[in-house]
Amino acid sequence: MAAYAYGIGIGTRNKKGEWLEVFFPQPRLAPNDAIASCLASEVTNSEAGLNSSALKALREALARNGAEDDAALLAKLETQSDAQAGADEAGGEQALVVVYLTEDAAPANVPEAYLKLHLLSHRLVKPHETNLDGVLGVLHNVAWTKEGAIAIEELTERTLDARLQGRHLEVSCVDKFPKMTNYVVPSGVRIADTARVRLGAHVGPGTTVMHEGFINFNAGTLGTGMIEGRISAGVVVGVDSDLGGGSSTMGTLSGGGNIIISVGEQCLIGANAGVGIPLGDRCTIESGLYVTAGTKVSVRDADGASTEVVAARVLAGESDLLFRRNSQSGAVECLTNKTAVQLNDALHAHN
Amino acid sequence: MAAYAYGIGIGTRNKKGEWLEVFFPQPRLAPNDAIASCLASEVTNSEAGLNSSALKALREALARNGAEDDAALLAKLETQSDAQAGADEAGGEQALVVVYLTEDAAPANVPEAYLKLHLLSHRLVKPHETNLDGVLGVLHNVAWTKEGAIAIEELTERTLDARLQGRHLEVSCVDKFPKMTNYVVPSGVRIADTARVRLGAHVGPGTTVMHEGFINFNAGTLGTGMIEGRISAGVVVGVDSDLGGGSSTMGTLSGGGNIIISVGEQCLIGANAGVGIPLGDRCTIESGLYVTAGTKVSVRDADGASTEVVAARVLAGESDLLFRRNSQSGAVECLTNKTAVQLNDALHAHN
Amino acid sequence: MAAYAYGIGIGTRNKKGEWLEVFFPQPRLAPNDAIASCLASEVTNSEAGLNSSALKALREALARNGAEDDAALLAKLETQSDAQAGADEAGGEQALVVVYLTEDAAPANVPEAYLKLHLLSHRLVKPHETNLDGVLGVLHNVAWTKEGAIAIEELTERTLDARLQGRHLEVSCVDKFPKMTNYVVPSGVRIADTARVRLGAHVGPGTTVMHEGFINFNAGTLGTGMIEGRISAGVVVGVDSDLGGGSSTMGTLSGGGNIIISVGEQCLIGANAGVGIPLGDRCTIESGLYVTAGTKVSVRDADGASTEVVAARVLAGESDLLFRRNSQSGAVECLTNKTAVQLNDALHAHN
Repeated sequence: MAAYAYGIGIGTRNKKGEWLEVFFPQPRLAPNDAIASCLASEVTNSEAGLNSSALKALREALARNGAEDDAALLAKLETQSDAQAGADEAGGEQALVVVYLTEDAAPANVPEAYLKLHLLSHRLVKPHETNLDGVLGVLHNVAWTKEGAIAIEELTERTLDARLQGRHLEVSCVDKFPKMTNYVVPSGVRIADTARVRLGAHVGPGTTVMHEGFINFNAGTLGTGMIEGRISAGVVVGVDSDLGGGSSTMGTLSGGGNIIISVGEQCLIGANAGVGIPLGDRCTIESGLYVTAGTKVSVRDADGASTEVVAARVLAGESDLLFRRNSQSGAVECLTNKTAVQLNDALHAHN
Repeated sequence: MAAYAYGIGIGTRNKKGEWLEVFFPQPRLAPNDAIASCLASEVTNSEAGLNSSALKALREALARNGAEDDAALLAKLETQSDAQAGADEAGGEQALVVVYLTEDAAPANVPEAYLKLHLLSHRLVKPHETNLDGVLGVLHNVAWTKEGAIAIEELTERTLDARLQGRHLEVSCVDKFPKMTNYVVPSGVRIADTARVRLGAHVGPGTTVMHEGFINFNAGTLGTGMIEGRISAGVVVGVDSDLGGGSSTMGTLSGGGNIIISVGEQCLIGANAGVGIPLGDRCTIESGLYVTAGTKVSVRDADGASTEVVAARVLAGESDLLFRRNSQSGAVECLTNKTAVQLNDALHAHN
Repeated sequence: MAAYAYGIGIGTRNKKGEWLEVFFPQPRLAPNDAIASCLASEVTNSEAGLNSSALKALREALARNGAEDDAALLAKLETQSDAQAGADEAGGEQALVVVYLTEDAAPANVPEAYLKLHLLSHRLVKPHETNLDGVLGVLHNVAWTKEGAIAIEELTERTLDARLQGRHLEVSCVDKFPKMTNYVVPSGVRIADTARVRLGAHVGPGTTVMHEGFINFNAGTLGTGMIEGRISAGVVVGVDSDLGGGSSTMGTLSGGGNIIISVGEQCLIGANAGVGIPLGDRCTIESGLYVTAGTKVSVRDADGASTEVVAARVLAGESDLLFRRNSQSGAVECLTNKTAVQLNDALHAHN
């Protein structure tokens, strides 16, 4: 039976009943046939609530088929089922959501989009492995406050009411994407300033994101790494690579055009440097140097001899490169550990 | 009758009775004569409270003269009038404030300064359109906490008391300026990390300020734009311009001297780039290149021929320029779509 | 009697009873003999609580020997002594801690590490003046939330429980180090985005840390300064120096190797610039230029004549230098106010 993913969650609806966000504590990929079959019959609409008999049927199917944790979660959340949805401190409404996706289609609504962002941040899928087409159009712009998600149009009144009640309504983010850490902190990571990692980021085990680091949704690291630079939407960084403070990777949403930038393993992007081409493994970019796809690069062989000047895009995906700007001639150079013959082969492979 | 602006607000006073900040939900520019006349007779001192008869007179004048919203706001806030000022959770005092400015003079006290900062962030005035002379001297350095504004000298005790009561006092900012979003979120904007936009910023409709973006007070955007770089104090960015991740604009308060930096329409400042001259429209600065006023630039005409080397300040305000550092010669170049003759005219226009 | 420091604090323990963090409102260096003697007999283990007779003995010794403030603090905190440790809103436990360090040894546990970080941020010691060997191994990775410190493994449940109770659990940081400002705001500083200054930073009086500024632990400023760039672990910046927006200092933990970077007095590191060598006084690095230890620099004397090309590391610690990249030749140059003869002496002093 075709089945992609499901999630049992609790989310916020605004006064119009629209979903602003959903928290899925335990998102699941690839449910087994028995669970999928029950989901298929009970969960007909990602945005609608389940009545008590559907909840009961689902809870029992989960418990019988190896998903005791999900059955327990559902039981815990039943107190927030549609009939009893609870008001939160921000004046919104917290309600139970169950999302079932039979296939990996573009997200059709807010709960589906949130389930997919959770799949990424729970590391159940890697960046680019789940279909996020149109996600920016599906998500609402939301005011993320210390009292939870608030619809933008309700914000002024809430801010004033909080004052009159002697409270202070801190607004930490006004965006379509919330902070990842308010939904999940995957194992083995440090994130020094959580405002800089969006839900939908994939933060590999052993990754430290320092204060100047940033990870967009559908982007991230695959394992250990020290991230003090910016991982733009769509960019993936391999194991044991470091992004220096303030370093930049070009994203597909803005400057990067349609090349998907990636960084291989054991790379080092220096502080305040930048990269606009995919890098192979063990590449280094000197601090302060921005290598765009169009940067003309003087390639040097293992003996330091110049072999050719090429646009950096020709070097995309190659390993063992060191990019620097010659501090006296001003020329951007690429040092390799290859001989001139090997280099010429590599440079002309795509002619 | 001369009348510049007014605002009905609620603010925080410290234990000495000094104003720390004021929130004006609906600041107003240019009140009509009837309202101005009532304000002139009832509001004699921006820092003092109004007695109940003055409040009543003002409320009725507002309601009679087309300012029903303000009358309603005043009614709502009367419960916080001086006699009944409420204690907030942070131990300060929330009290009603009415500020009336007959003319656009330098702000004389905290409530007046806050009204002017609100005028900017509500987009009632553009940057440089309201007199902010001496504002840094008027504002207090305040600890902005999750429980509201706290006087610095009261902070240690409050932090300890919160602990003893089982609470945690998060301090998000220690500064003269608070976050804009705790006071107003203007329509049509996204601000991914609100810590990076000060009250007094002018954020144009359609602007997205990404996590690495920043907007100081008396600065901002005029319309749509993607801001991933820093808009320093005094800098204005035109419609449809993008500031790449980590890009820098020189502010008048620090490195920029007395030239006011601006960026025209449809410009692109690349990631990790910077600009120290005013730019016209449709200008581009390559990622990673910092153009200061003194940078020597080799100007190229529409045929790519070099016409002259000039300091970048000579190019201030010109449109259709592309700045890059030649990645092989190391020279900073400016490409244009003009002929050599047009260029020479432009370059020598200010000799 | 040997005595290094002591602190009376209140801290959070997780469900296993492990210390996550400690707040010391008044950390003390060099207690007098009488107090040290009492501490030595009553405080035997930094992690253990004190019984009521020990607390009483200590309180009386403090009061008798010139530490009335500490006696008062202890009295205030006795309500949180071990027998009565209070549950905080985050579900952890707040308990009294007294730490006594006879000598400046490596921190052996969380309370000792926190006391040392407090010594730095209270400006009782300067960076590098207290032994922090192994501190990263001692500290736990903690989820810092609006409800206080939470053990990572307890976070998911707490987040869900908060939702079910209509609250929202904002997680601002997942790190071994908390924000400094939740523990201390030293006098005379502004910190526009507190997420960017770790406990253990030394922020000199008169320092403003703007939104793009950053200060790591065991690093900081000694006096007035405008910090809009990043002060990496171990880096010290002298009085009256400015770090421009997005500027970088190489830290000893990452790219800087084993040279300890420092910046002297009256220096200016331009926006988006960077430095990988120790700088003397009155040095300037042009905006956008990254000077690493290996950067080849063309040194110019007071007449602008080139004297020699050297690696920047040779210039470490020299004063009155201006680094720039020649915007036409692309060469990194160092201008000085010295004659060629003086320069040659200086450059070859370490041969």
